[in-house]
Amino acid sequence: MKSEIDVLMQDNDVDVLLVVGNAEHNPAMAYFTGGGHISAADLFKKRGEAPVIFCNSMEREEAKRTGLLTRTFSEFPTKGLLVEAGGDPTEARALAYSKEFSSLGITTGRVAIYGQVEFGPLFSVLERVKKYLPDLEFNGFFRDPILLPAMMTKDAGEVEHVRRMGKITTEVVGRTADWISRHAVNQEILIHPDGKPLTVGDVKSKINLWLAELGAENPEGTIFAIGRDAGVPHSTGAADDPLRLGQTIVFDIFPCEVGGGYFYDFTRTWSLGYATEEAQALYDQVLEVYNKLISNLKVNMPFTEVQKLTCDLFEAMGHPTIQTKADTEEGYVHSIGHGLGLRVHELPFSGINATEKDILSPGTVFTIEPGLYYPSRGMGVRLEDTYYTRPDGTFEALADYPLDLILPMK
Amino acid sequence: MKSEIDVLMQDNDVDVLLVVGNAEHNPAMAYFTGGGHISAADLFKKRGEAPVIFCNSMEREEAKRTGLLTRTFSEFPTKGLLVEAGGDPTEARALAYSKEFSSLGITTGRVAIYGQVEFGPLFSVLERVKKYLPDLEFNGFFRDPILLPAMMTKDAGEVEHVRRMGKITTEVVGRTADWISRHAVNQEILIHPDGKPLTVGDVKSKINLWLAELGAENPEGTIFAIGRDAGVPHSTGAADDPLRLGQTIVFDIFPCEVGGGYFYDFTRTWSLGYATEEAQALYDQVLEVYNKLISNLKVNMPFTEVQKLTCDLFEAMGHPTIQTKADTEEGYVHSIGHGLGLRVHELPFSGINATEKDILSPGTVFTIEPGLYYPSRGMGVRLEDTYYTRPDGTFEALADYPLDLILPMK
Repeated sequence: MKSEIDVLMQDNDVDVLLVVGNAEHNPAMAYFTGGGHISAADLFKKRGEAPVIFCNSMEREEAKRTGLLTRTFSEFPTKGLLVEAGGDPTEARALAYSKEFSSLGITTGRVAIYGQVEFGPLFSVLERVKKYLPDLEFNGFFRDPILLPAMMTKDAGEVEHVRRMGKITTEVVGRTADWISRHAVNQEILIHPDGKPLTVGDVKSKINLWLAELGAENPEGTIFAIGRDAGVPHSTGAADDPLRLGQTIVFDIFPCEVGGGYFYDFTRTWSLGYATEEAQALYDQVLEVYNKLISNLKVNMPFTEVQKLTCDLFEAMGHPTIQTKADTEEGYVHSIGHGLGLRVHELPFSGINATEKDILSPGTVFTIEPGLYYPSRGMGVRLEDTYYTRPDGTFEALADYPLDLILPMK
Repeated sequence: MKSEIDVLMQDNDVDVLLVVGNAEHNPAMAYFTGGGHISAADLFKKRGEAPVIFCNSMEREEAKRTGLLTRTFSEFPTKGLLVEAGGDPTEARALAYSKEFSSLGITTGRVAIYGQVEFGPLFSVLERVKKYLPDLEFNGFFRDPILLPAMMTKDAGEVEHVRRMGKITTEVVGRTADWISRHAVNQEILIHPDGKPLTVGDVKSKINLWLAELGAENPEGTIFAIGRDAGVPHSTGAADDPLRLGQTIVFDIFPCEVGGGYFYDFTRTWSLGYATEEAQALYDQVLEVYNKLISNLKVNMPFTEVQKLTCDLFEAMGHPTIQTKADTEEGYVHSIGHGLGLRVHELPFSGINATEKDILSPGTVFTIEPGLYYPSRGMGVRLEDTYYTRPDGTFEALADYPLDLILPMK
């Protein structure tokens, strides 16, 4: 949670966080602003002090609504900076940064930089800021040890954002099911009123429309994969594939709030009209494992324990898993889940990148997504919901939706 | 055009361009890849040589479709790099970059870095690459003197992208006009069937849906500003404002292809049902100036000359302009246009940031957008189209749409 940032800064010997860029599609900035339409801001967070945001004076009101201490770029007018910089715009921007730093009393120490921005301009400017403030040391992190761990546990307001996205997600999934099921069928293939096959691309277009209508977007796409593609977890589904009865469809949807806010992550596996015996058997096993995992969740357990339990359960059923064969492409081939928030994948992790810090502590929001994949048999099954570890140590699915395999045609 | 890149690299003493990040919402990468869903690639462009892109092996086919020379990260497997780096992931990534550079024979010279990415990770890794390749010098540009000038002139394929976005844009504007005009009116306010007022927010929701349906998005929003807001060019319109008859509405729409491709930029001013005499007079003057500007466009003219002509014409009509009063908020208060492409604002410029290089040369794609603003009188008018300077030196509006002020109610 945000309350941990100061300690994490201390642990990593960081005196100041500098977060740059827009508030949209920029997780580090959105974490502090809580959304809103703020463009090209500079946010400074000194250890032990409240963050201060510099923004355009036109966006001052929007910035104030974030609850952050707000200042504006107009304190250091561009014209004067340009004169002082001898007409060189890069130098003028470096001067602006130096004055922002100095005005906050930051002239020495270690500064960690965050923000999704065009790399070159900031890189060139920071080189010059060093000239004005030689005692500042600028750093970036490849694996962020401050904001990512803080983001791992969510406060009630953040969880509400995820819950709201869960509502939108399941609403879209429900509309998708209803819409698909109303199509006519010709020789096992779903068809439009004009007789043309209904394709994966058609379904994805509808999903995008409904997401837009409900105030969401899917910057990372949607998986709607049928048949063999359903057996390949990284396949998003081929747009031209027609929808057929009796084939497994893995429908994995992970939208976020418009502008790049909080995500949701959700998967169901459908078989239209009927299921083959083989698909039903595979589904039954995934469902059994899903239910066992949920009933075995314990607050503060290492997330890797859930991964281990999943592998053990699938192996007992006779499936290969990555626990016994690291590069298997059949059976259970991925990790059991991941945290999510302002990114679709964030801490805690459950797979090879997990550490001893990846535990299901109160405030974590994470997915549970067991699956079995057999591309050689043209099928795959995955079930996924997003869970929240409540402050009281119980677990809550952040949206409800039936787990059924068969989607009956109307 | 891309053919100018080598000369621009030479002029700026740059030996290599390194472009990083996804191909989506990342103009520098999209410029080379021409779109496509390529995530987290590294593109190297040596002066005088064709670009080479490193990508995930899963995306190799997608990358090949770009026509670029393609290689994959799997040449330097992560596991081996991690071992070589003593288990440090930052060091492993630095080793990967070093091997990519070395394998292309790049071990010395000046490297300019491009890409819309999270700043910290790349910053931390480049620091370490210097250890392996001490003769490489990394640079960024605050005002890019290579790709931006190259992008200023478009080839036929790029213009087709803009033209296609023009079609989508005018289609959405037409649907908006039709939909608005079909609403009932109660005491000069447009109302929904349930009697509630039709608001700016309702209109923007519809616009977003239609854009999504047609394969476009508006990452920078849409201006739909009525009354006093229409008189403030940076106002995007208040969501709760009801639509009223007889008030000016500035409708400025600047969407791009889904995933962050080419933009279009377009403005009309509407008055619903009827126009007041004052609004009609203001509109007539803007239209007169618009027409004069278009008939005075000449190939290779400095874009600032169009700005000067606009100010002269509006001043002759008795309006204040920024030419005579730099900080005026009434009259003509902005620049007459800007280039557009993979960014909504790019070269050439016509305002205070313009240089002698900002000329309407063949291949430029730019807006012409005269406007008059009187917030004190509760009105504003702007008309804008996107033009293309053809290779033969003639000018072409890239989409057609009537310029009419009054939108009759049906």
